[in-house]
Amino acid sequence: MEPAAFSVGVDLGGTNLRVAAYTRERGLLETILLRTRLADGREAVAADLCAAARRLLDRYQLQFPLVGIAIGSPGPLDLPEGRLRHPPNLPGWDGFELRATVERALGLPVVVENDANVAALAECHLGVGKTLGANSLCMLTLGTGVGGGIILRGKTWDGMNGMAGEVGHLNIWTDGIACGCGGQGCLEPYASATAVRRMAGELIARGNAPGLAALQKGQPDFSAREVADLAREGDPIASDIIRRGTRALGAALAGLAHALDPELIILGGQISEAGDMLLEPVRAEVAWRSRCLLRRDVPVVRSKLVDPSGVIGAAALALEARGPKAIA
Amino acid sequence: MEPAAFSVGVDLGGTNLRVAAYTRERGLLETILLRTRLADGREAVAADLCAAARRLLDRYQLQFPLVGIAIGSPGPLDLPEGRLRHPPNLPGWDGFELRATVERALGLPVVVENDANVAALAECHLGVGKTLGANSLCMLTLGTGVGGGIILRGKTWDGMNGMAGEVGHLNIWTDGIACGCGGQGCLEPYASATAVRRMAGELIARGNAPGLAALQKGQPDFSAREVADLAREGDPIASDIIRRGTRALGAALAGLAHALDPELIILGGQISEAGDMLLEPVRAEVAWRSRCLLRRDVPVVRSKLVDPSGVIGAAALALEARGPKAIA
Repeated sequence: MEPAAFSVGVDLGGTNLRVAAYTRERGLLETILLRTRLADGREAVAADLCAAARRLLDRYQLQFPLVGIAIGSPGPLDLPEGRLRHPPNLPGWDGFELRATVERALGLPVVVENDANVAALAECHLGVGKTLGANSLCMLTLGTGVGGGIILRGKTWDGMNGMAGEVGHLNIWTDGIACGCGGQGCLEPYASATAVRRMAGELIARGNAPGLAALQKGQPDFSAREVADLAREGDPIASDIIRRGTRALGAALAGLAHALDPELIILGGQISEAGDMLLEPVRAEVAWRSRCLLRRDVPVVRSKLVDPSGVIGAAALALEARGPKAIA
Repeated sequence: MEPAAFSVGVDLGGTNLRVAAYTRERGLLETILLRTRLADGREAVAADLCAAARRLLDRYQLQFPLVGIAIGSPGPLDLPEGRLRHPPNLPGWDGFELRATVERALGLPVVVENDANVAALAECHLGVGKTLGANSLCMLTLGTGVGGGIILRGKTWDGMNGMAGEVGHLNIWTDGIACGCGGQGCLEPYASATAVRRMAGELIARGNAPGLAALQKGQPDFSAREVADLAREGDPIASDIIRRGTRALGAALAGLAHALDPELIILGGQISEAGDMLLEPVRAEVAWRSRCLLRRDVPVVRSKLVDPSGVIGAAALALEARGPKAIA
């Protein structure tokens, strides 16, 4: 029997840096978890990343052929160059040549991909996509912002500038709320955790949201989750906020379903932890908006993978990008 | 030298039926143009289609190897089965097995594709996409409705049910105008020819649109084009209608650019004949809404091909779908 080939996956986050050796047959062989030393600068972080990768390469190259190395990084990114462009979660990294830096240090070709695409790829090959047998899907990560990844026939669709998958900027209200992208009425200012907190803050300031005001009094930096909890307990104002978000999300997803006709839409990120309270109204909105054109409802499901999905996704990407052939 | 291989392309429309023999090297060898005999039923139309294809096959198979046959058909369609589903432009054709019927009659494999996708494919390989060197693009056909086709790396993206590319149902106004798809606030009821006429009619009925009222008086069934002409002449109400449409279109295209990051967006159909009056405000809206995230503006251009683009697109699809290998 052929020996299993291994890959090295890297999940570069603003808080944690994970580097892992992985084979398709055995899963994760070993994961190295480090803090991302942002305060020490990007070169220090890249050096940590390369040192960890080198340790794994030294250890596993004796046992298995190496297929490739891939890094999931916060965006925006120039792809396939792997150059960062004003990444909001990695301040000071603008223009950093992540791919070239790591390739030089390791002497090996490296693939860099947007972290949202890596998460989507992981869900496709190892998470809910695998469970449901779907290999063309859209994944939305509902967190501080609304990120996204598009997987078509098992591969990430990066677009022409590596910018595809920014589904948080599908427009759902032409004259709507200003968005961080510079536009207005995008999905993000309606359906992100930030949006939920902002809407709650505005209603508290107007003085007609007693439940939310009480929440804020006890916890000045309350989270979107607590607004959702309040809605679940029946607070009408909190429920309105959640309803506004789920309508926006349903409208955007119905549009995406019409444009791309995917097999599956996956919701991840902290907002998705609200579970059925989120999923049921979103599904109803999508179904209502697609009832005439689409042959069947597009399933909208919650992501399945938790940590370390990013590092597994990157390792899977390395296997996919390089194909079955090992690096000589 | 290898003899050029030929394909047969069919453009099945609600009014015209075009069947052509085509080679990549020589272009159209011969086109047969017929009226679509809708009143005589779908079997009669299919028989006309097959008889025309048979004539071309008999004539050109002596000279060239046949690569394939493809039909561009109004949708919705089940693909790759090539079965029609309540096509609004082919009344009475619901459930018609177009592909199987033609395959049985001709004894050859046939590819069926949505006409909007075929038009996009033709623009990619033979029209403005070829001129600009772009092979990943979105094309919108702004006519009675808003149709669309998505081409990724030179191939049509059909989606999981053959329904992809329905970009007219991207949402741009969650609480907006009811749409024929069953939803509300889709692009179609803002940016189609029908939408322009409907908005004009509503404003005339309200009694504060003297220019439009005069147009209607002289021409009760005025067209979207005449509303655009009135706007060009400076009529403020007609200009508002056009502005509303271009804003909606720009918002939808910016969302599409963020989601798919295509190389090019092409606008076709009767509304696109307005030229720069349409294109300039749409481009400005897209640029404004993408200024922070996208590395460069996505070019928005007018389609280049006119008739018989559908039949050429279908012939090109047949060549693409079957690859370089001729049918034995």
